[in-house]
Amino acid sequence: MSGLLDSIEGPHDVKRLTIEELPRLAVEIRDLLVDACARFGGHLGPNLGVVELTIAIHRVFDSPRDPVIWDTGHQSYVHKILTGRAAGFQALKQEGGLSGYPSQAESEHDFVENSHASTALSYADGMAKAYKLRGEHDRTAVAVIGDGALTGGMAWEALNNIAANKDLPVVIVVNDNGRSYSPTIGGLASHLSSLRVNRRYEDMLEYVKEKLGNVPVLYDALHGFKKGVKDVLAPQVMFEDLGLKYVGPIDGHDEQAMEAALRQARDFRGPVIVHAVTQKGRGYTPAENHDEDQFHSPGAFDRATGVEKPKARIWTNVFSEELVRLGKEREDLVAITAAMLHPTGLNSFAEAFPERIHDVGIAEQHALTSAAGLALGGMHPVVAVYATFLNRAFDQLLMDVALHRLPVTVVLDRAGVTGDDGASHNGMWDLSILQVVPGLRVAVPRDGERVTELLREAVEVSNGPTVLRFPKGPVAESVEPVGKLGEMDLLRAPAGEPDVLLVGVGPMAQVCLDAAVLLDAQGIAATVVDPRWVKPLDEALVLAAGAHKLVAVVEDNGRVGAVGDAVARLLRDGDVDVPVRTFGIPQEFLDHAKRAAILGRIGLTGQDLARQITEAVAKRTSHAEPVRR
Amino acid sequence: MSGLLDSIEGPHDVKRLTIEELPRLAVEIRDLLVDACARFGGHLGPNLGVVELTIAIHRVFDSPRDPVIWDTGHQSYVHKILTGRAAGFQALKQEGGLSGYPSQAESEHDFVENSHASTALSYADGMAKAYKLRGEHDRTAVAVIGDGALTGGMAWEALNNIAANKDLPVVIVVNDNGRSYSPTIGGLASHLSSLRVNRRYEDMLEYVKEKLGNVPVLYDALHGFKKGVKDVLAPQVMFEDLGLKYVGPIDGHDEQAMEAALRQARDFRGPVIVHAVTQKGRGYTPAENHDEDQFHSPGAFDRATGVEKPKARIWTNVFSEELVRLGKEREDLVAITAAMLHPTGLNSFAEAFPERIHDVGIAEQHALTSAAGLALGGMHPVVAVYATFLNRAFDQLLMDVALHRLPVTVVLDRAGVTGDDGASHNGMWDLSILQVVPGLRVAVPRDGERVTELLREAVEVSNGPTVLRFPKGPVAESVEPVGKLGEMDLLRAPAGEPDVLLVGVGPMAQVCLDAAVLLDAQGIAATVVDPRWVKPLDEALVLAAGAHKLVAVVEDNGRVGAVGDAVARLLRDGDVDVPVRTFGIPQEFLDHAKRAAILGRIGLTGQDLARQITEAVAKRTSHAEPVRR
Repeated sequence: MSGLLDSIEGPHDVKRLTIEELPRLAVEIRDLLVDACARFGGHLGPNLGVVELTIAIHRVFDSPRDPVIWDTGHQSYVHKILTGRAAGFQALKQEGGLSGYPSQAESEHDFVENSHASTALSYADGMAKAYKLRGEHDRTAVAVIGDGALTGGMAWEALNNIAANKDLPVVIVVNDNGRSYSPTIGGLASHLSSLRVNRRYEDMLEYVKEKLGNVPVLYDALHGFKKGVKDVLAPQVMFEDLGLKYVGPIDGHDEQAMEAALRQARDFRGPVIVHAVTQKGRGYTPAENHDEDQFHSPGAFDRATGVEKPKARIWTNVFSEELVRLGKEREDLVAITAAMLHPTGLNSFAEAFPERIHDVGIAEQHALTSAAGLALGGMHPVVAVYATFLNRAFDQLLMDVALHRLPVTVVLDRAGVTGDDGASHNGMWDLSILQVVPGLRVAVPRDGERVTELLREAVEVSNGPTVLRFPKGPVAESVEPVGKLGEMDLLRAPAGEPDVLLVGVGPMAQVCLDAAVLLDAQGIAATVVDPRWVKPLDEALVLAAGAHKLVAVVEDNGRVGAVGDAVARLLRDGDVDVPVRTFGIPQEFLDHAKRAAILGRIGLTGQDLARQITEAVAKRTSHAEPVRR
Repeated sequence: MSGLLDSIEGPHDVKRLTIEELPRLAVEIRDLLVDACARFGGHLGPNLGVVELTIAIHRVFDSPRDPVIWDTGHQSYVHKILTGRAAGFQALKQEGGLSGYPSQAESEHDFVENSHASTALSYADGMAKAYKLRGEHDRTAVAVIGDGALTGGMAWEALNNIAANKDLPVVIVVNDNGRSYSPTIGGLASHLSSLRVNRRYEDMLEYVKEKLGNVPVLYDALHGFKKGVKDVLAPQVMFEDLGLKYVGPIDGHDEQAMEAALRQARDFRGPVIVHAVTQKGRGYTPAENHDEDQFHSPGAFDRATGVEKPKARIWTNVFSEELVRLGKEREDLVAITAAMLHPTGLNSFAEAFPERIHDVGIAEQHALTSAAGLALGGMHPVVAVYATFLNRAFDQLLMDVALHRLPVTVVLDRAGVTGDDGASHNGMWDLSILQVVPGLRVAVPRDGERVTELLREAVEVSNGPTVLRFPKGPVAESVEPVGKLGEMDLLRAPAGEPDVLLVGVGPMAQVCLDAAVLLDAQGIAATVVDPRWVKPLDEALVLAAGAHKLVAVVEDNGRVGAVGDAVARLLRDGDVDVPVRTFGIPQEFLDHAKRAAILGRIGLTGQDLARQITEAVAKRTSHAEPVRR
């Protein structure tokens, strides 16, 4: 690192630069972004697209007094650089290093750490209302949101509320690259797209700029002029219908144009939308030419060529291929994604059955309820989402799908500890909240064979919803059962009388097997089962538990309310009071690090497990009375 | 009942009536609605508003082949009457009688039983897509949605998706009474309202009707005409921006006009919005004149005067009054409601502090995240919602509020069994899903004094969110503590050595006290505690449990993953293996009946509890080994 960036310790330094220096600053920023992402992986494409936009924001607004809220925080790298954190990119997303998302602990310029989309406008609405109530009338709340995130229902709820307060100083920067994640679909996309490409409309803007000075004007000021011609030049402007002021479209890579637009918006002292058109991956040729997603979030890659390091076969691949096979066998299978066609592996299904795929945008609620509709209409929908995003559609799964006992299969990818994307990406909630859904069945495969097997079983269920969940990363090595206990797979049966029953949920079955070997050395005989279906639990578990001195449940999910608690309840309800111990993710928001490092830190390894179980058994044995019935 | 209604066994009978008979049918329907609601209470206002609209739908469409989806199903009474269920209104909402919501068990004409708002468009989208895939090209999906429900994010997600499929036969009837629940706020409301009241626009429609025949025309057909004048006559039409066809506004009480509009929409074979303007409470003077909510959902009332039977003081009243007191003491308190100002009791706060109340519309997601923004801006927001609707904002509470440790207080009314509004109104999920939220504190008051006390404690918490939950109906009689166990209230301590520890959550403390008396008679000595704060649980519970032979936890929430499971986990983690038994709502969707009847049915009474605990103790005693450590 050298040059202008060395002098940037905060927004005041960005403001001090001359206009002539700004293009050089942009080049240095892009260089740093490409360098860091090539080494560590990261959200390269989105950040390359917001370089000039972010520079302009920090020259016009007074952060943190004017808070800048980044929707889906992965587009905040440039913001981090301009707020004095350029050096941190030497350890981007590494344990103890710079987070890939905004972080309050890192900087007073960061507010929202959550990476779930479409929230920024609601935050900005609340913050602006607070400033107003507190009489801090000079502050402006700035929200930067992608066109993709506008398809989320929350964004609509917020727009509707923001529009109702004509004197609320909120500046909404729509970062419109026309392809958030992948080509955005829906009516809104067509609308924005026609605003974007209509050359005559831009020509008109040019004309108006000439007449009124070299700055874009608030849309409202155009009213007299556009009446009668606007219908010909551009479609109706949705935002204006809501009563929001609109500036744009602006070339988001013209830093000076962006500054001018933002100044106008800032000085209006009411809600304004600034529509910036940007190019994802801008300035790095391999990204610009990357058709699929403009390097949305590559792993480490070769800087010169843009070629990513080869990856092992991941869980997603197994699901992706099996779903295509199932699609050939069953014409009633239809797949749904919420703007995650490639990351969820549904792209293969989409290519094979283009009529039977629906990308609903960043709209998990609609994904689930339209799936309910498809099921009511006689189809069997498979909804594939990241585990953490299912929280957005909990009510819809419960009330719209489960209450009506509809055959919808939800496939949760990136379940459990995901690691370096930070707290809000970990899929550590689903096994808990899903427990409460009446009639829902939940399967957790421990390896690729079980993904195949359980997916087939799931789509066979016709009288209610099913969920299948698997983690991020390389698929686990196969573990074949040595027998069955009811519907459960028996993975290990000790020769003599068993002491401990280890219940390994999904990939934690392997951890249990590792622990069993170590326990053997301590003279503790361990049985290991994989329940496969964790909801409802197999009644065979009650009988099996009664034959052991201790039951331990191990899962890659928050400990609270998940499978461990369910096993304990099942035994209580069966009047089997064998002691139960449960192991999982501590119920807290985890700092970012690699998945393996986190699993080690939180004790989800064979060694840790063996140690804790040995201690628990020792404690039990030291009591006067026997622990078994 | 007599007259035309006697002959209505289904939609075919509605179609057979002459145009001249229809006004008489409407009169008979209104008579039946007023009669049934006066006797049993019910959603009178909304149903009086959709009489003609529903008649028109069943004359134009072919239900159930063309499914009619009622958003927020409480507007389906007329639909029930026209599909052969008039007689059922003799036992409306009574146990075993007609449900107040659509019910698949009642009729093949009913599809969606869930009462949560804004879902209908997503269902219709899915169903229409299923029909298309199955080659059933003659079917149309009809969704009826109120203007209030359009403020919900789901509706936006659905509109955006529906608009993207130009040949999807979906007819969206917007039932616009301009005041769903209470005056709807936001940019959308202003927009619809200007469409509604602009007389010149209606005059223009008249003119067009004359020119083009006596039917409304698809909006698109007007394009040539309206260009250049539309800007003057009406604001830009949002729906059209999305690419949706639009018919309206239509007088929703002009049955023939509605039929004409619906026929046009049906024959278009693509997505069409039919904008019907209706009057809530239409045809029943006390409802029409009822300023607050046009008799949205009164209890039983005097038919002649519209005066409701006097009501006992309810939980909501206690909260409502205390919040006003707190508002006087603290200027940083701000209240948020999602279109439930009166039902949540926030109207008093709104009157006292009009600057500090925000009604965000039916938008629970935005409610929580804008609260996060308000908290980031230095305020302490109190969000008051029905317990069941919090499910809509689970992700926002978790990621937007709790992850940032923001001081937001959520007040859940209608928690636990609510009863006669059916499965989707029961607030039986919150104590389970809230357990997983790191850093969240949850309080459950057992009586009015505790509402006051715990609300004050909740808003004092400054480093994270708090939840307070209480049930529907008359506030419970006060129970003063006989002592403290840590932060818990000790409500009963037996004279000799205690056998059983009863943990009563909120109003279930009284049930535990009732049970304790009965247990005494069996020679079982019971301690009763009310933990007050159920998350985190007081460590004093571990010590207390160790001094008993059995711990029983009783709560008015689904049994799975709630306080009972949390107590069991706390004891396990403390290596205290005293047997625990948990009592709550069985984890299933409950049929409608009065709250007391349901509590009796599911065994949440002192008598049932005493019986089950006696049995559990007997089982334990019959075992060879002692149950205590």
